[in-house]
Amino acid sequence: MREVAVIGVGMTKFGELWDRSLRSLGIEAGAAAVNDAGIEGKDIDALYVGTMSPGRFVRQEHMAPIISEYSGLVDRHIPATRIESACASGGIALREGFMAVASGLHDIVVVGGAEKMTDVPGSVATDTLGMAADQEWEAAFGITFPGLYAMMARRHMHEYGTTKEQMAMVAVKNHKNATLNPKAHFPREITMEQALNSTMVADPLGLFDCSPVSDGAAAVVLAPLERAREFTDRPVVIAGSGQASDTIALHSRRDITTTDATVAAARMAYEMAGIEPKDVDFAEVHDCFTINEIIATEDLGFFKKGEGGKAVEEGRTQRDGEIPVNVSGGLKAKGHPVGATGIAQTVEAVLQLRGDAGKRQLKDVEIGLTHNIGGSGASCAVHIFKRGW
Amino acid sequence: MREVAVIGVGMTKFGELWDRSLRSLGIEAGAAAVNDAGIEGKDIDALYVGTMSPGRFVRQEHMAPIISEYSGLVDRHIPATRIESACASGGIALREGFMAVASGLHDIVVVGGAEKMTDVPGSVATDTLGMAADQEWEAAFGITFPGLYAMMARRHMHEYGTTKEQMAMVAVKNHKNATLNPKAHFPREITMEQALNSTMVADPLGLFDCSPVSDGAAAVVLAPLERAREFTDRPVVIAGSGQASDTIALHSRRDITTTDATVAAARMAYEMAGIEPKDVDFAEVHDCFTINEIIATEDLGFFKKGEGGKAVEEGRTQRDGEIPVNVSGGLKAKGHPVGATGIAQTVEAVLQLRGDAGKRQLKDVEIGLTHNIGGSGASCAVHIFKRGW
Repeated sequence: MREVAVIGVGMTKFGELWDRSLRSLGIEAGAAAVNDAGIEGKDIDALYVGTMSPGRFVRQEHMAPIISEYSGLVDRHIPATRIESACASGGIALREGFMAVASGLHDIVVVGGAEKMTDVPGSVATDTLGMAADQEWEAAFGITFPGLYAMMARRHMHEYGTTKEQMAMVAVKNHKNATLNPKAHFPREITMEQALNSTMVADPLGLFDCSPVSDGAAAVVLAPLERAREFTDRPVVIAGSGQASDTIALHSRRDITTTDATVAAARMAYEMAGIEPKDVDFAEVHDCFTINEIIATEDLGFFKKGEGGKAVEEGRTQRDGEIPVNVSGGLKAKGHPVGATGIAQTVEAVLQLRGDAGKRQLKDVEIGLTHNIGGSGASCAVHIFKRGW
Repeated sequence: MREVAVIGVGMTKFGELWDRSLRSLGIEAGAAAVNDAGIEGKDIDALYVGTMSPGRFVRQEHMAPIISEYSGLVDRHIPATRIESACASGGIALREGFMAVASGLHDIVVVGGAEKMTDVPGSVATDTLGMAADQEWEAAFGITFPGLYAMMARRHMHEYGTTKEQMAMVAVKNHKNATLNPKAHFPREITMEQALNSTMVADPLGLFDCSPVSDGAAAVVLAPLERAREFTDRPVVIAGSGQASDTIALHSRRDITTTDATVAAARMAYEMAGIEPKDVDFAEVHDCFTINEIIATEDLGFFKKGEGGKAVEEGRTQRDGEIPVNVSGGLKAKGHPVGATGIAQTVEAVLQLRGDAGKRQLKDVEIGLTHNIGGSGASCAVHIFKRGW
């Protein structure tokens, strides 16, 4: 397999973008990534698009050729492929693009992720997201994602003494981080009091434990490392790629305080990159609910099982902590247009490694990790990035 | 890139399968392919699932981990990825599986395709299929796929003198072929009179010019050719893989009597396989409407542009003709559970090359081709198969 590098990144602002369509978001992100890479449309050999449910959100399937056409790429009739794995659609699309380049089948590949979630009433958005759970054994009985993650939180609290305060600290940290990110949906601080006293959604998760329903898109341009220097002097290498699956229904898991798909995908990525968790300098993890950032930091091996809550409390995941987590603001405050999330995490990793992260730039970072989950953990993609120069 | 072989195939019966769920169909096809390959679940490294719109048809996204779980593969947490490209979802999933093996990332990969279309009223099925067209510029104004293909047919008739009789001959041929296929949705002959006098759907296309709404699933097992002999003495090699895209809306094409995505995907596949159209011994093509078989046989290079209708009339695409087309019955009579179609075509190609096609076995065939289209031609996958022994 060839080594694969990211040579360009781009993303739209995340938020409630009433005046934008799904395709226009995809094009904006793609064009930004292409410009960042300094390539032209004619250089692109293939396109991957991660998006969860455009059929339900905007009544449109078959999104990949649409993005290709509306990006002006139609003349070369390039392969354009949509990947769906619920909220992990972006991360898994990245892996497919990585594979296309690594295999030698394609050279320059654009991977985008996009979702337009606010054109439907809130109940339809929640209902659609519920299709990432088991329709026959979970969703049909009325449960939605806040309820599933609430059960994971409750069990984590029971097993390990994790507290509501610790979960609130995840939200406070990520909102503070988002103030440094001009693309964030909610770039404003919240207090512990606000977090702890917010409207109850599914006990113990309050409103500020939940990521928002957002619109947005992100894109990256991939190339074989051996050709990357034609385009940039700061290629970022995809050093590790892992993907794993688990039972779709939460009740079938051996343990609901851990996501085994994260453990398996991380193992695969660490092995490919030849590194250990302690080598990671920063991570963008899937904090769809605050409890999931705590679980992720354990499952990724940054902290021992059960100590993720304490680690937040001790500030170890802060910007200036030993392993900064979600310096972009995370899904919680940057926003969570589901198909875009895995790619937006990649954008952040690349910007940080290149030193292009503006006000939120971390110092001396050499290895970054992204962690993207679908559903309550039935699918997961983990990627590891390092400097290619 | 490594050479890739198909080492096992399986499919369900196609039809109106009222007592079956989408997941049960996927599992049945997958188990049949795994048994045919003589492997066990623990041998499988990754899973790809092509399905167009389970979110609309059965209220379930995130299908790939479901198929993995319900197939009993959950313990190894293998990567499980859904591909969607409307009715080309299966063919493009095959290409992604091919890439996964060719790259060296995975060894044994199962690729399945499935759709459950009959659990919704007919109007919902038509509406959902319409999401493969441009929602903003086509579907929103009321057109559905019979109307789009009717315009393609009308223009083909105008440009090349293609007749309604020639289109009816496609239907009569494919229904006759389906009588030899125990898996077919409609394994019965129709007469020219029936075909020509059937209920008008969208002038000039009558009911018998249209493929049916079907349920069904199909699956194949892939392995690197260098390992294929561990499992079978008759591995079938994927000699060529092509994929291409085009404008999503029919009105934006340079010419609506041809599908440029077919031309581009075929060129890519022929080049990879190092063959020409005349080397192909038989083909399974995307006859979603009879006109599209005629267009496909031209665009794939079997006949000159405009001569596809005449070729049918002359019997050149019959079982005993120079290039048998859709000996399985095609989408028209075998059925068209959209996500399954590209994989079912692959199953037919493999059975024919192995000599396992039962009553419908062709004599002395060495190279087979499959052609799978999404929408009115916005995406296309073409694959070429040959014996690996």
